[in-house]
Amino acid sequence: MMKTLIKNGTVVNSTGTAQADVLIDGETIAAVLAPGSTLLGFDLEQNVDTVIDAKGKYVIPGGIDAHTHMEMPFGGTFASDTFETGTRAAAWGGTTSIVDFVVQYAGENVLDQYKAWHEKADGNCAIDYGFHQILSDVQDSSLTAMDELINEGVSSFKLFMAYKGVFLSDDGQILRAFQKGAELGAMMMMHAENGAVIDVLVQQALAAGNTSPYYHGLTRPWQAEEEATHRAIMLANLTGAPLYVVHVSAKQAVEQITAARDNGQNVFGETCPQYLYLSLEEQLGASSEQWGDFEGAKWVCSTPLRSREEGHQHHMWQSLRTNDIQMVSTDHCPFCMKDQKDMGIGNFSKIPNGIGSVEHRMDLLYQGVVDGHITLERWVEVTSTTPARMFGMCGRKGVIQPGADGDIVVYDPKGHTSIGVGKTHHMNMDYSAWEGFEIDGHVDTVLSRGKVIVDDNQYLGKAGDGKFFKRGLSQYLT
Amino acid sequence: MMKTLIKNGTVVNSTGTAQADVLIDGETIAAVLAPGSTLLGFDLEQNVDTVIDAKGKYVIPGGIDAHTHMEMPFGGTFASDTFETGTRAAAWGGTTSIVDFVVQYAGENVLDQYKAWHEKADGNCAIDYGFHQILSDVQDSSLTAMDELINEGVSSFKLFMAYKGVFLSDDGQILRAFQKGAELGAMMMMHAENGAVIDVLVQQALAAGNTSPYYHGLTRPWQAEEEATHRAIMLANLTGAPLYVVHVSAKQAVEQITAARDNGQNVFGETCPQYLYLSLEEQLGASSEQWGDFEGAKWVCSTPLRSREEGHQHHMWQSLRTNDIQMVSTDHCPFCMKDQKDMGIGNFSKIPNGIGSVEHRMDLLYQGVVDGHITLERWVEVTSTTPARMFGMCGRKGVIQPGADGDIVVYDPKGHTSIGVGKTHHMNMDYSAWEGFEIDGHVDTVLSRGKVIVDDNQYLGKAGDGKFFKRGLSQYLT
Amino acid sequence: MMKTLIKNGTVVNSTGTAQADVLIDGETIAAVLAPGSTLLGFDLEQNVDTVIDAKGKYVIPGGIDAHTHMEMPFGGTFASDTFETGTRAAAWGGTTSIVDFVVQYAGENVLDQYKAWHEKADGNCAIDYGFHQILSDVQDSSLTAMDELINEGVSSFKLFMAYKGVFLSDDGQILRAFQKGAELGAMMMMHAENGAVIDVLVQQALAAGNTSPYYHGLTRPWQAEEEATHRAIMLANLTGAPLYVVHVSAKQAVEQITAARDNGQNVFGETCPQYLYLSLEEQLGASSEQWGDFEGAKWVCSTPLRSREEGHQHHMWQSLRTNDIQMVSTDHCPFCMKDQKDMGIGNFSKIPNGIGSVEHRMDLLYQGVVDGHITLERWVEVTSTTPARMFGMCGRKGVIQPGADGDIVVYDPKGHTSIGVGKTHHMNMDYSAWEGFEIDGHVDTVLSRGKVIVDDNQYLGKAGDGKFFKRGLSQYLT
Amino acid sequence: MMKTLIKNGTVVNSTGTAQADVLIDGETIAAVLAPGSTLLGFDLEQNVDTVIDAKGKYVIPGGIDAHTHMEMPFGGTFASDTFETGTRAAAWGGTTSIVDFVVQYAGENVLDQYKAWHEKADGNCAIDYGFHQILSDVQDSSLTAMDELINEGVSSFKLFMAYKGVFLSDDGQILRAFQKGAELGAMMMMHAENGAVIDVLVQQALAAGNTSPYYHGLTRPWQAEEEATHRAIMLANLTGAPLYVVHVSAKQAVEQITAARDNGQNVFGETCPQYLYLSLEEQLGASSEQWGDFEGAKWVCSTPLRSREEGHQHHMWQSLRTNDIQMVSTDHCPFCMKDQKDMGIGNFSKIPNGIGSVEHRMDLLYQGVVDGHITLERWVEVTSTTPARMFGMCGRKGVIQPGADGDIVVYDPKGHTSIGVGKTHHMNMDYSAWEGFEIDGHVDTVLSRGKVIVDDNQYLGKAGDGKFFKRGLSQYLT
Repeated sequence: MMKTLIKNGTVVNSTGTAQADVLIDGETIAAVLAPGSTLLGFDLEQNVDTVIDAKGKYVIPGGIDAHTHMEMPFGGTFASDTFETGTRAAAWGGTTSIVDFVVQYAGENVLDQYKAWHEKADGNCAIDYGFHQILSDVQDSSLTAMDELINEGVSSFKLFMAYKGVFLSDDGQILRAFQKGAELGAMMMMHAENGAVIDVLVQQALAAGNTSPYYHGLTRPWQAEEEATHRAIMLANLTGAPLYVVHVSAKQAVEQITAARDNGQNVFGETCPQYLYLSLEEQLGASSEQWGDFEGAKWVCSTPLRSREEGHQHHMWQSLRTNDIQMVSTDHCPFCMKDQKDMGIGNFSKIPNGIGSVEHRMDLLYQGVVDGHITLERWVEVTSTTPARMFGMCGRKGVIQPGADGDIVVYDPKGHTSIGVGKTHHMNMDYSAWEGFEIDGHVDTVLSRGKVIVDDNQYLGKAGDGKFFKRGLSQYLT
Repeated sequence: MMKTLIKNGTVVNSTGTAQADVLIDGETIAAVLAPGSTLLGFDLEQNVDTVIDAKGKYVIPGGIDAHTHMEMPFGGTFASDTFETGTRAAAWGGTTSIVDFVVQYAGENVLDQYKAWHEKADGNCAIDYGFHQILSDVQDSSLTAMDELINEGVSSFKLFMAYKGVFLSDDGQILRAFQKGAELGAMMMMHAENGAVIDVLVQQALAAGNTSPYYHGLTRPWQAEEEATHRAIMLANLTGAPLYVVHVSAKQAVEQITAARDNGQNVFGETCPQYLYLSLEEQLGASSEQWGDFEGAKWVCSTPLRSREEGHQHHMWQSLRTNDIQMVSTDHCPFCMKDQKDMGIGNFSKIPNGIGSVEHRMDLLYQGVVDGHITLERWVEVTSTTPARMFGMCGRKGVIQPGADGDIVVYDPKGHTSIGVGKTHHMNMDYSAWEGFEIDGHVDTVLSRGKVIVDDNQYLGKAGDGKFFKRGLSQYLT
Repeated sequence: MMKTLIKNGTVVNSTGTAQADVLIDGETIAAVLAPGSTLLGFDLEQNVDTVIDAKGKYVIPGGIDAHTHMEMPFGGTFASDTFETGTRAAAWGGTTSIVDFVVQYAGENVLDQYKAWHEKADGNCAIDYGFHQILSDVQDSSLTAMDELINEGVSSFKLFMAYKGVFLSDDGQILRAFQKGAELGAMMMMHAENGAVIDVLVQQALAAGNTSPYYHGLTRPWQAEEEATHRAIMLANLTGAPLYVVHVSAKQAVEQITAARDNGQNVFGETCPQYLYLSLEEQLGASSEQWGDFEGAKWVCSTPLRSREEGHQHHMWQSLRTNDIQMVSTDHCPFCMKDQKDMGIGNFSKIPNGIGSVEHRMDLLYQGVVDGHITLERWVEVTSTTPARMFGMCGRKGVIQPGADGDIVVYDPKGHTSIGVGKTHHMNMDYSAWEGFEIDGHVDTVLSRGKVIVDDNQYLGKAGDGKFFKRGLSQYLT
Repeated sequence: MMKTLIKNGTVVNSTGTAQADVLIDGETIAAVLAPGSTLLGFDLEQNVDTVIDAKGKYVIPGGIDAHTHMEMPFGGTFASDTFETGTRAAAWGGTTSIVDFVVQYAGENVLDQYKAWHEKADGNCAIDYGFHQILSDVQDSSLTAMDELINEGVSSFKLFMAYKGVFLSDDGQILRAFQKGAELGAMMMMHAENGAVIDVLVQQALAAGNTSPYYHGLTRPWQAEEEATHRAIMLANLTGAPLYVVHVSAKQAVEQITAARDNGQNVFGETCPQYLYLSLEEQLGASSEQWGDFEGAKWVCSTPLRSREEGHQHHMWQSLRTNDIQMVSTDHCPFCMKDQKDMGIGNFSKIPNGIGSVEHRMDLLYQGVVDGHITLERWVEVTSTTPARMFGMCGRKGVIQPGADGDIVVYDPKGHTSIGVGKTHHMNMDYSAWEGFEIDGHVDTVLSRGKVIVDDNQYLGKAGDGKFFKRGLSQYLT
């Protein structure tokens, strides 16, 4: 059993910082100690295998990205990161756990898909992983599967209010799934966009010859998101199910979540780095020699980027501060421009939806600390502590305390990270949605269950280091 | 240096629980360790002075009561607990820090009062204590004093919108103090009731012959609290000062705080156990052989108890869950019925305002866990972690982590506590506002900076154990 | 041309009262004059055919009931009032115009139905009538029909968010209809209940053996109404269409309308007498020798009666006062208990939905004046003036002014009306939903376009007196 | 008795328009008739003294300006319009009634002042006038005076939350006045700005050398208005008094009024043309050869002009549409630049507060119709009908109906009005706050109680035409 001491660092948990050493014995944090490398005269350094000096650096719980889509089949292609490449990129960026989605499309069997996803992921991941289960076009058998999956450690289920015939469940189906979720105590996740509205707007845009990537955003207006968010909240209200709204981008949707929470309902909102930093206006202005105005396809994701002029990004940072938005995931769903995104040249609706960010989330949010948007503690909270509590990993993930997994990042606030292809970029994509972003900090060392997997700009892990995490029920409910 | 090991317990911090041992070396937590009493083969039990077995019990950060008034001069008498009796009672109840108020009445000099309060408290306290400074009828010299007090570790200042000629500052004075607070980063605390309105209503009630204690509540209607809360929020908005509203009791006042917070303003609300559990209706119905309907005087406090029919208590628990109210203090301000409260027989306005609860806060809030109002973690958060962060004690108080003070309570969820005079009751009062309350838990052991001061129903400390705490600026701001 | 003078009355318009005489020349109001029956020495009484003395009485614009369903096919039967019987009953009650609904079920052709409805109504009505057009399962041809119908004087179109396969349009269909409505300036009306949710709840209730009429209400919870109302508002927001929500019963739905209106959107709400006076609790308690607990079927309507304990009725009166609800229609849709409602014995979902009130609306709302809920002027406004403005009849209906149609009611505030079968009851129903209601006022005389059709408790009109009204666009938009 | 027929016009009342003739017999409207100048064969034109042809023009109720300050003593000078010059200017602009304010400063006797104001006004006015009573520093004698004044036809009382030592009443005084108002059913009017806050900010600005007129606005921030508005609403809530907030300029204050109204409280808001059209930015930019940046003094009024960038003007128009703001008065309080405003050179706080607009309100609001902000009917409503109902003149003023006073304006929508000194300008001011405004309409003819006082750009009336109006209680309460 490998023993590691991280000494002299500033341990940052969500409720405060401490100058402390961290001792990891095997896969688990054995102790958090006052600095000095000794305990009651006992010399720790002499009794461990590895000593990491974190002087002047932050020692934080490894990031948890609760929303990724590795090698997801979508629109006739697959997300370009496999579990292997995607989790390795995550590790590079200081993320030590992901919760990915088992995809069950309409017509498929839930449990078959669950098994298939284990086959894709098991033995291939660089870091620990769990699964949410997507339920499309909810049937009786889907409800039965929920019972079984809870026992498998899959305690959260995602439904869609868009993508008819593919993902969408109607309100009656959602109601039944929510009833079941309330009964089980499971977290119900929602892609909250009114698909019927969007389908009409897309069709009208294409008919009018508006085919460039920019129209992706225009045909998914904030009203479609606000409306669906409200609807999901009411269905949750009716059933008592806890509700987690994924990838919230519109300030009006946030306001719905805020109102529900003020009213005492268990409703939560996740946003993503793209909704904090990027905007529809920038997508509109995007152009390149290679792609022309199809350049904008790089940022085609759903929900879409929102208008900066309307103030969505500003409101999102504020909501992140005030805990009206509880956490930040990536919705990592990478596609290359060549042979993937370019399927949508001449028809934006054929562009595979997704942005790849799993590698950069910890850095991008740390920049929010530097820029004064959030505190250091809140950084840890929204990227790690809350995800762990939200999705039933509390005690083992998201916190630096004895008994927790040795998932730790040593982060250097005096370091620097330049994001971009050919710079730092380990995701399997031929472009970066974050090209040119400069971060005033750097992921120095990453430990996953006590093993150093990234250090000094080298990847030291291997496929299969990461294990499946059987999650419990949410520990964030009130 | 005394070394203590608390073993086998369930350590509860605000973000989760862990099975862990806690090692205290001298006054400070030296380590939090995986259970087993050994570290890398090193036997801890053999190397400490004291071992406390917390098997089956909760090990929590000691309570912080951020709102007490020991031996406060008020209405021609003094709060009946001295710093000695009051802090000892606090210790009995699992509270290991208080923040009391230096009182400067209109006409008095702020810094003189500050010195006087040190004389009262220094050397007499059972537990650590800090001071907020009350500023009445704010003058230029008061603003100057704020600079000085910040350096003394007094980083929070309380103003009053009621009690004309005694405490009250007018809106212009409040504005100036808030401007100064914003400049210093100090927390501005507010007694938010419209005193001018209350004075008229009191006078009218007395003129109408309505003299019983019940009219105390009726002459301080929710509108007076809601209005003043809103006004304080707007003055804070105008100046940028962080605002902490004390003893919030009306749901409409909570709604004002909620709205300000949703809007991104640094506004916070404190409630007290009496506003969670007790009601105006019960005060109306109170009667005894000894006191007749003057019995109700036992619960005369300001803000007053609110109507249960109007739903204030229900809404307050909900707000505590949703973090629209951030923490719970006692506003401990005890007066005996005999020779103190009874000054108000025949004229409720002469009843000294106050309830004594410093001893029971941790128990009463734990009962909220048992009753399903809040989670275990939220209990720790609202009674200890948030008070520490709110008032600049973070890192040393409110959390169990290395480097923090050894302020720890071992709480037995299988124990039982009966509240009442002649049962558990160490406050210097001839009655208990909580007579008859039964708690499904018990404070077993209390450590203050590493020293066991309460154990097995015995008080083991002494006056002077507690030291003055120089506080920093709030660590709760966004 | 018949000339009539109504003298000595108190003319009540929505903005105030006046002591004035009203002269009707032929079908039209020729003058409103200072009382005295003379003008510049010219003696009016000598020059008219009829003089009605309204001393001590109110002279008000005839009521406009903008929501009726005469002989509507529904659930295998027909609403029990024909255009003849229903409009005659309306006349008895002081209503001189209705706007009924042309029904187009899914699969039917809109314009065919429009013609069919003219055949039913033309030549049969006692009072003037207009048509709204129901659009079910909106198709391209429905949108085309809207153009044509606007020219026919049908300027309002009703959609449904419930009754799948019968009435329901999905959100994409609604969007397209709203886009068309915005283009035309047409008023879009909405039955706002989430049908998918209701269908599941109904199925679950029946499966659980809950078959009595009371479960009709329980399976249409306020959340289903609030949600659909919000959704309709957002679709209107997205398109710019004016929106009129029919039969609002839940206070939470009102709050959505209120918020939209505060935000400057053209959103309107209609309620019905049943939502002001009747409650779910009373339906639950209903029982009779003849029907047992099926007695409750008498009040099965959609939206359903709401809980009095939850305060819906109280909030609805308030909203009517504050103009958060703009007008009161009946949703008159009568069915007999025998051979109609009784189809639902053993299965509440088979009970034809509807209550008959067309005869009593003016009286029931006048009772709201007597009870202090609304002012006299507001009574006229919500029952006549606003309906006229809302639905493009302004200038000719809803007001007593020259040029307006001679639709006038002489209402006696010292009269009395006992509602019930065998008392006053001219609707073709074998029961009254209002049995036992006593009204402190009485409809004395009713004129329709200058002709006295009701006087002294006698009906003096005939089928065919009423003409089709070609309506313009709404005159209530801001 | 003069008889006048206004023929062929479009009569506009607040609920709709009608092609109608209007017959005035003496001082009163005798009839409103279908056009054609005949009634039952009786030829009207032959029987009247005067015929006015209003073909193609609007015939509207004369404007009612419910907020003027003629020859008001303020800051050591007097408002520059006497009752004679001010009411004559009003008449020129189509306003046929004003409600002015009897001023009682702190220390003065209310009833003495009331008598003094009659002496100023009686016999001097061109149009009818009523009085509100200002109550400053409310005393017992003020409350007694309220009883007496109600009988005199003074049914509305104005209090101030600013101007300490001059106008201000503290919250206890306001409470008592509101209690009295609730008892009497009187309308309580409020100048809602937090004077204590403003006084500090003014002092600080002057101390910092910020003396130009622009700082008038900066030292009266929206928070001061929002706060006071909320406070007034709560005091009204506590007492049940109806509340009318004068000269609302901040959108946040409107939001408070909106919320109170949604909640069913009798709270009303008045705005003024300057808050619809003018902005702080324009005041900042104002400069002239004669006055330099003191030019901005022309628009020094309280509440101040608000920032256009913050969107106050936009929100105010919207609120006027949605009836969240009920009416528009001028707060006409004119001062000349020379010898009056110029007292504030070098110290903005010495500038007499006020703008003169009594002459232009009807035109400026009509321009709002032309620009699409409000409808024609809403124009009449906010300038005439609602003022009459709000302040107890309903039936006689604000409406064209028999029995109403013959206060009528013939307004030509094809006419044009250029505002400015030396153009149209009859107010006794040496400048116009509205210089350069161009209006797409024109006041052609004005009748006051049946007498033509303005016609064809000539003034035909005389001082003393206008009579004191004894007002009743508000007819706008719900």
